Amino acid sequence: MLKINENYLKLPGGYLFPEIERRQTALEALGLPMPLIKMGIGDVTRPLAPAVIRAMHMAVDEMGSAENFRGYAPYYGYDFLRETIAVHDYQARGVQIDPDEIFVSDGAKSDCANIGDIFDINNKVAVCDPVYPVYVDTNAMAGRAGDYGTDGCWSNLIYMPCVAENSFMPELPRETPDIIYLCYPNNPTGATATRAQLADWVAYARKNGAVILYDAAYEAFISEPEIPHSIFEIDGAEECAIEFRSFSKTAGFTGNRCAFTVVPKRLTRGGASLNAMWGRRQSTKFNGVPYVVQRGAEAVYSLEGQTQIRETIAYYMENARVIRDGLQQAGLVVYGGVNAPYIWVETPDHMDSWDFFDRLLKEACVVTTPGAGFGPSGEGYIRLTAFGGAAATREAVERIVGILN
Amino acid sequence: MLKINENYLKLPGGYLFPEIERRQTALEALGLPMPLIKMGIGDVTRPLAPAVIRAMHMAVDEMGSAENFRGYAPYYGYDFLRETIAVHDYQARGVQIDPDEIFVSDGAKSDCANIGDIFDINNKVAVCDPVYPVYVDTNAMAGRAGDYGTDGCWSNLIYMPCVAENSFMPELPRETPDIIYLCYPNNPTGATATRAQLADWVAYARKNGAVILYDAAYEAFISEPEIPHSIFEIDGAEECAIEFRSFSKTAGFTGNRCAFTVVPKRLTRGGASLNAMWGRRQSTKFNGVPYVVQRGAEAVYSLEGQTQIRETIAYYMENARVIRDGLQQAGLVVYGGVNAPYIWVETPDHMDSWDFFDRLLKEACVVTTPGAGFGPSGEGYIRLTAFGGAAATREAVERIVGILN
Repeated sequence: MLKINENYLKLPGGYLFPEIERRQTALEALGLPMPLIKMGIGDVTRPLAPAVIRAMHMAVDEMGSAENFRGYAPYYGYDFLRETIAVHDYQARGVQIDPDEIFVSDGAKSDCANIGDIFDINNKVAVCDPVYPVYVDTNAMAGRAGDYGTDGCWSNLIYMPCVAENSFMPELPRETPDIIYLCYPNNPTGATATRAQLADWVAYARKNGAVILYDAAYEAFISEPEIPHSIFEIDGAEECAIEFRSFSKTAGFTGNRCAFTVVPKRLTRGGASLNAMWGRRQSTKFNGVPYVVQRGAEAVYSLEGQTQIRETIAYYMENARVIRDGLQQAGLVVYGGVNAPYIWVETPDHMDSWDFFDRLLKEACVVTTPGAGFGPSGEGYIRLTAFGGAAATREAVERIVGILN
Repeated sequence: MLKINENYLKLPGGYLFPEIERRQTALEALGLPMPLIKMGIGDVTRPLAPAVIRAMHMAVDEMGSAENFRGYAPYYGYDFLRETIAVHDYQARGVQIDPDEIFVSDGAKSDCANIGDIFDINNKVAVCDPVYPVYVDTNAMAGRAGDYGTDGCWSNLIYMPCVAENSFMPELPRETPDIIYLCYPNNPTGATATRAQLADWVAYARKNGAVILYDAAYEAFISEPEIPHSIFEIDGAEECAIEFRSFSKTAGFTGNRCAFTVVPKRLTRGGASLNAMWGRRQSTKFNGVPYVVQRGAEAVYSLEGQTQIRETIAYYMENARVIRDGLQQAGLVVYGGVNAPYIWVETPDHMDSWDFFDRLLKEACVVTTPGAGFGPSGEGYIRLTAFGGAAATREAVERIVGILN
């Protein structure tokens, strides 16, 4: 008799975003007083850059021609893309990352989720709280999280609260973890990590033999020059960190699916190379990213592509400014939105975050994300994204201000 | 200290195809007497169908327009594709599969590999021998395979020999498995399963509570009308089977990445719905297939697309005929190639299959796949694929015949 993975039965309710969608759909079914404005799921809305579109058309034509057709892509990505990434995202910033340390994939979500394959079940995992739910849920599925308690915490995870009092940067945990998830610029709080803070984490991980899983999916939104874009800007990180990057937010690829993960060759544990292990995992369980998509990703790095994606990022960050300023003027306490496309907002009068979510949904027809969906320390906050249209963003802010005054 | 997944250390050598590529590259470095002809990895060579190309261009344009841009795709695929698949591949053949039983993904390899996530580690796994290495390696990585022995077998897997004597259809195993991998039309042997044979397997799985993981990636190559295209053509399979399908070989999508997995809603174990579990796995660890690729896959089902892909399949199957006939005339014993794009060839004089592989590589400059790479019972065979160009295929056959005579 087939035995299921019982860990799945321990997972509470639905994944956060399907639950938001459920509430939204239920409201829509009742008839809405005004059109919904979605600032919940962090999904981009601006079209792909013209340089990307042109590259994709050219690649589609290649796939339709007998001479230029391409079958299976290399498991880890085409050299043209791995080399471009290494030069542009790392070497140009003085960071020595080689192309064979870069693994192109279909998404940072997939990689964050699948990286656990190469780790033993008996590792102690530390996560920030609030946190992107994928880190937690995938460890729960694998059996690393223990049991889910009535306090909304898994018994075997180390939660590192990130709250206003510590500027959303956790303290080094008292119990020593083996795996540490960090995400900066942070989803959901919009906070950033300074070079000194990251250096503390690198020193801590090296001292304990831990590995930092560093999610830098939002690095393109950093506006302040002193903020590091990569954990590998910190000396020694190449011996204790894996970094996840994505074209999703950088270049509007959420529906195009391309990302990459950097596993340095100098990162070893128990005598094994994690670079080789991840390579084995990917070559056995994954078959590469569509050629057309990889050509699109390559075009992001062209001069034209860079100009175009920076315009789009500026567009979103102007939305972020509108949200920050508007909500602050309405008397709300807001964080983030300067080096990240997320604005983290304290609920008024210590309101429950799902209640505030529901209120904004029903009264303002604005979809947000309740902070509690990201973990217990997210209670008392909601997250807004800056990825909407400029006009819709302004209107959403006006509506929220309107119901709060 | 981070502990690695020690199961990775048990894996022998490299994955099969990288090893083939290594030998090929080593020979190329020495200088080749004539151009290599690749009949090793089962990769298509004909361009994408014009209907697919047109649909992809249209979708690229949508992604470049503010009005039609699409962000995150639904986790399980767009409705337009799931509905088309359900109608065309199942309902039109009298099989009741609903769109919400279809999970669109980036590849049958990914799905075959990841499906183990929802199963307990303590399941007994049965695989055919020879077999697509991904089934074995992914179970070894997960810890279900035990240890790798000097006989080339994993201590905890049930091997089901598929040899000429049983027409490459295994007997029901003596030891009862919980998970049974079957692949028909078969990779690597090219054998097919009849309706009666599949019915025996379905009855056996239902009796034992086992689940059949049915890989039907090559169903489009079936030419004989009585051969089932789906395990769900067998009554009761919806209570004991999961089916993997792919556009890779059907429509030349190896470099385009689109596939789907069917998990029936009636398939439950331990009180849990495997459909819901796989849905949870995919929504948590995967973020959908590129919109452009899904529009390309949809176009495969258009009248024009169907005509075009059938022409390409006929092209490959004519190659298969050329290979079969040529090698038979040269005195070799060959199997497959009628309902599958693979030809399974006995090595002459009971030669070791890696030796015959090396001989064909060095003397004929033809890359094949050694049968032993697919498991112990593949020893004494090589696999040739029909996915090459027609002229190259004819030349490869002539070269092989030349060195054998």
